[in-house]
Amino acid sequence: MSEFDLIKRLQEIISIKPAAGHPSCVIGIGDDGAVLAVPPGRQLVVTTDTMVEAVHFRSRSAACDLGYKALAVNLSDLASMGAEPAWFFLALTLPSADSAWLESFAQGMADLAGTSGIELAGGDTTSGPLSITITALGLVETGKALTRSGAQEGDLLVVSGTLGDAAFALHTMNAGGTPDIASRNALDRPVPRLQLGRCLQELATSCIDVSDGLLADLGHILLASGKGAEIELERLPGSNSMNALEESERLELQTAGGDDYELCFTIPPQRRSELEQIEKETGNRLTVIGEITASGELLCKTPDGGIYLPMKRGYEHFSRNEAGDK
Amino acid sequence: MSEFDLIKRLQEIISIKPAAGHPSCVIGIGDDGAVLAVPPGRQLVVTTDTMVEAVHFRSRSAACDLGYKALAVNLSDLASMGAEPAWFFLALTLPSADSAWLESFAQGMADLAGTSGIELAGGDTTSGPLSITITALGLVETGKALTRSGAQEGDLLVVSGTLGDAAFALHTMNAGGTPDIASRNALDRPVPRLQLGRCLQELATSCIDVSDGLLADLGHILLASGKGAEIELERLPGSNSMNALEESERLELQTAGGDDYELCFTIPPQRRSELEQIEKETGNRLTVIGEITASGELLCKTPDGGIYLPMKRGYEHFSRNEAGDK
Repeated sequence: MSEFDLIKRLQEIISIKPAAGHPSCVIGIGDDGAVLAVPPGRQLVVTTDTMVEAVHFRSRSAACDLGYKALAVNLSDLASMGAEPAWFFLALTLPSADSAWLESFAQGMADLAGTSGIELAGGDTTSGPLSITITALGLVETGKALTRSGAQEGDLLVVSGTLGDAAFALHTMNAGGTPDIASRNALDRPVPRLQLGRCLQELATSCIDVSDGLLADLGHILLASGKGAEIELERLPGSNSMNALEESERLELQTAGGDDYELCFTIPPQRRSELEQIEKETGNRLTVIGEITASGELLCKTPDGGIYLPMKRGYEHFSRNEAGDK
Repeated sequence: MSEFDLIKRLQEIISIKPAAGHPSCVIGIGDDGAVLAVPPGRQLVVTTDTMVEAVHFRSRSAACDLGYKALAVNLSDLASMGAEPAWFFLALTLPSADSAWLESFAQGMADLAGTSGIELAGGDTTSGPLSITITALGLVETGKALTRSGAQEGDLLVVSGTLGDAAFALHTMNAGGTPDIASRNALDRPVPRLQLGRCLQELATSCIDVSDGLLADLGHILLASGKGAEIELERLPGSNSMNALEESERLELQTAGGDDYELCFTIPPQRRSELEQIEKETGNRLTVIGEITASGELLCKTPDGGIYLPMKRGYEHFSRNEAGDK
């Protein structure tokens, strides 16, 4: 399969009809670049994420899951900013042009592109160690993008879904076990909270998606907002599948495991009652886990009133002393 | 150096002040995505290109040249569509966080970002085999993007600059020699023809940048336009540094070497006289090398009236039978 055949085949499988009322490409795949028209009254939200073999995924991961997840992690970023998916660009580096692998990869990506209404608008394929970079473009009403920086003292801290499932699946596999199907799906097929992000546009004062782990990502909100937070650890939403774990182990997975792709956001306390309606609309469980404080500190409180000191706060690609820095 | 320190340092070095009148990011680096406002009357042009170590560049390439070139190849795509550079996103995969390497890489990228007025708006850094993916966003007046598809029978075929210099530098190094500085610069520091692309917006009927080699890229124009072409090989603009080469060797470098990042475009024959003015404005040599025909064929004519049959037409990442396809 030549590079051109490969691009064409990817395009055939992944390309979806844009949703009704959704802006299609003016010029799509097949020229030096795509030409896109942003409708009046909208701004672009752009995000890019790379997945590298053996770093972000296991070498024997199913191609369809990789295709799905590479797009999902980008859509999760669009969700956290309250944007509607519009177009994406796929830069795919492959050791060889294996047709069966590619068909499966593209099908996994197409599954999610179809349900989320995002159009493949261009890309690049090249030979080399397996790596997938997606740049996703979303649209948001002008001035309405959710950011990390608006959390206020007294705001309630909310997370969607459950935390720690993906990390639990990985933990189980690393120990030679077979994770339950729900945890496995959380790891391989996370569902970006796009509808939730849209619903939060007029409610949340800040928002982020939980990709590196709750404490790390919440830390970004606190830093950007110049605030602190208190979390009640017993409130962290978790799946029953983790019940057999030691408390400390479960807490580490839930606070620092990462790969959750749930939304963590803040809302004014007087608007708490609106959460229930949004739960109904989106089908996403929403849990208040704490509140924003004026201090710059992030405190995790245990049920007995003690303070939890996490072993780690989340995933970092480059550990601090790797380059010999002091 | 942590991932966050690394991103911050890249941002410090690469970030440029946008040119006067140029739209800045509404929200730049530091959130889940960038927020960008496309001015009224403009469309977006988006392109993405990956460079992988040992595939697109030599393992011992200077970091500053890699930073420069990774951006240059994307800007060249914007140039070929007549777009003005606006924002770019950098997905960088690094084996380790080597501060010195990173400073040099970022400086090379900053050099070109500064002269071309493109703003770093976001990115992702991750550990893994060295690879650089850039997604560049440009702006073009609505409906005015240059494409590959408008070439008409009788149109003149024009290329900018000289062809084969980058391939000659690589050829020389592969043979253990030291290329002259001009060829070396063509390989490591190609200048995207941004101003030329803007000038061609109202003149060219089709346009592409020469990245995979003249014949391969011209082939894209012919396919998209449903046309053929005749090229007079003795007209191909070349540097004197290639004079010592065998004719056949020189021709292969010029027609199929690739990495030229010159523009190849078509114009109506009655507007030939406008080329001189554009040469003056841009400082780019422009050479008419042939014309568009109604046939679907691409013919390369030798000075004695013969037909040149190229050994290869350009660079392909995946050769045809690699995956066992028939």
